[in-house]
Amino acid sequence: MTTLPVCAARLVRHSRLVICPVTTSLTRCLHASIKGNPAKTTRALVPMYSKFKESSECRNMSFLGGQDKDFIFRQLLEYKSFTYTYLLADAKTKEAILIDPVLETVDRDVKLVTDMGLNLLYGVNTHVHADHITGTGKIKEKIPTCKSVISEVSTAKADIKLKAGDKLKFGNFEIEARATPGHTGGCMTFVCHKKGLVFTGDAVLIRGCGRTDFQEGDAAKLYKSVHSQIFSLPDDYLVLPAHDYTGQTSSTVGEEKTLNPRLTKSLEEFQQIMKNLNLPYPKQIDKALPANLVCGIQEEQAAQ
Amino acid sequence: MTTLPVCAARLVRHSRLVICPVTTSLTRCLHASIKGNPAKTTRALVPMYSKFKESSECRNMSFLGGQDKDFIFRQLLEYKSFTYTYLLADAKTKEAILIDPVLETVDRDVKLVTDMGLNLLYGVNTHVHADHITGTGKIKEKIPTCKSVISEVSTAKADIKLKAGDKLKFGNFEIEARATPGHTGGCMTFVCHKKGLVFTGDAVLIRGCGRTDFQEGDAAKLYKSVHSQIFSLPDDYLVLPAHDYTGQTSSTVGEEKTLNPRLTKSLEEFQQIMKNLNLPYPKQIDKALPANLVCGIQEEQAAQ
Repeated sequence: MTTLPVCAARLVRHSRLVICPVTTSLTRCLHASIKGNPAKTTRALVPMYSKFKESSECRNMSFLGGQDKDFIFRQLLEYKSFTYTYLLADAKTKEAILIDPVLETVDRDVKLVTDMGLNLLYGVNTHVHADHITGTGKIKEKIPTCKSVISEVSTAKADIKLKAGDKLKFGNFEIEARATPGHTGGCMTFVCHKKGLVFTGDAVLIRGCGRTDFQEGDAAKLYKSVHSQIFSLPDDYLVLPAHDYTGQTSSTVGEEKTLNPRLTKSLEEFQQIMKNLNLPYPKQIDKALPANLVCGIQEEQAAQ
Repeated sequence: MTTLPVCAARLVRHSRLVICPVTTSLTRCLHASIKGNPAKTTRALVPMYSKFKESSECRNMSFLGGQDKDFIFRQLLEYKSFTYTYLLADAKTKEAILIDPVLETVDRDVKLVTDMGLNLLYGVNTHVHADHITGTGKIKEKIPTCKSVISEVSTAKADIKLKAGDKLKFGNFEIEARATPGHTGGCMTFVCHKKGLVFTGDAVLIRGCGRTDFQEGDAAKLYKSVHSQIFSLPDDYLVLPAHDYTGQTSSTVGEEKTLNPRLTKSLEEFQQIMKNLNLPYPKQIDKALPANLVCGIQEEQAAQ
């Protein structure tokens, strides 16, 4: 009679699963109970394994656990404006998106995309930035199939204008667009539910938030946006902002809900705090705003 | 006769497992095969599930998937020297370590550790840095139970001197110390196998490596260290360096093995490249080296 481990190995070979501790263990276990019916075991294993890979339990069990075989994630930093750009890709289909690319670092980002053999579908802006020029125009020059994306409410030009609830797919993944006005009127937050990631733009920063004193800024609106659209997400979702000025790279919804010194206050206190920030006029705003308002066709205007 | 889904739910309640798609699916599958023996099913499920949670397959299936319920990871940046500091913690026991903290950002890091309710066990240095002063001395002033750590070969003072192969435990996790001399004589690379993370210090940088022209620097040694101790790790392990000057935050072993413009070359070519770098003398070296050589007792020397 064949021993269990040998049978297990054979069963794993029969199935199309990767040989790994869990499938081996699973196969042995099932084999023992099914009493040596490989076809039945394989039929049982495949949907169960797929279902697990999609489950929130799987998502929550591992954080930054090496390079995922299915998903590529990179956080990139532009030092002048302290902007974070995010590269997300389906490792299998190679379809990719960039969130908030910056003009100055387009060459770096395009090289990374190219080196990794990715097919960049979208250059997405969380909002019309006032502190740096978006990279989406220049990226479209270099990768003509890439489409620029921004919210419809922003009134900026772009190939794709998003409404709240719209989704952008890349391979087997997607980001959901949530309207989070307050820093600007057209701010959007993007959520990748499958990976528990929330790209907050300037709505929520780590222990802070975007200013609300220009570009249709409205403290009450921002407060409402954050509480209804971001703090309503699961506590373990990773907060990935458009900027950080202290060298922090990520936070979580749970942390910001309890530790954010502004957004944990009452609406009235929050409005008071925002009113008294007395921030300087953004250095790059006069250059950045006109360029960002044509983010989709920037190559025509700003390629001088 | 009870239907399968009802049986499955009952079995899941019987077991101590979290109710989630995988366990429900698993239970249904096993139930079908075992023909309704709940005790046997539960006994089969528990070790299999535990084994899966520990497995590399589980690790590889999810990357940056929200805040792990078991593990906390934060990458932190010091802008002056472009140094990355890493916070790792067991989310349950709250035991934590900091890798390569920087003097200037100690207050930020200690606040983060305190806000998150963590018990900082170790301040670990990958090597005697020449470009910034380590934060371990100042951290020990603020958190007296924290111990400073560095390699024995470095000849620097510290509470704990590591040899190759030593492990530092924090809660249910550990990092393994690997000797990777070449940038300095005492350089160590730390590997967290459970999460597929490799903290390379200055041995491997993203698409680069540390210089080898002072502090016992030796290009041939560095080449050998990287190839034997880092490139021998699985391709999907995430490379987390001590610095990046281009705004990139991570890479993978697989990527560096194929895309690193220096370390993919032959030993002879690599030595030639390193010989001809003509880098300027590090700005902070005269202040940094003496302070870092007493990283464990820096509070006595550098607290002026």
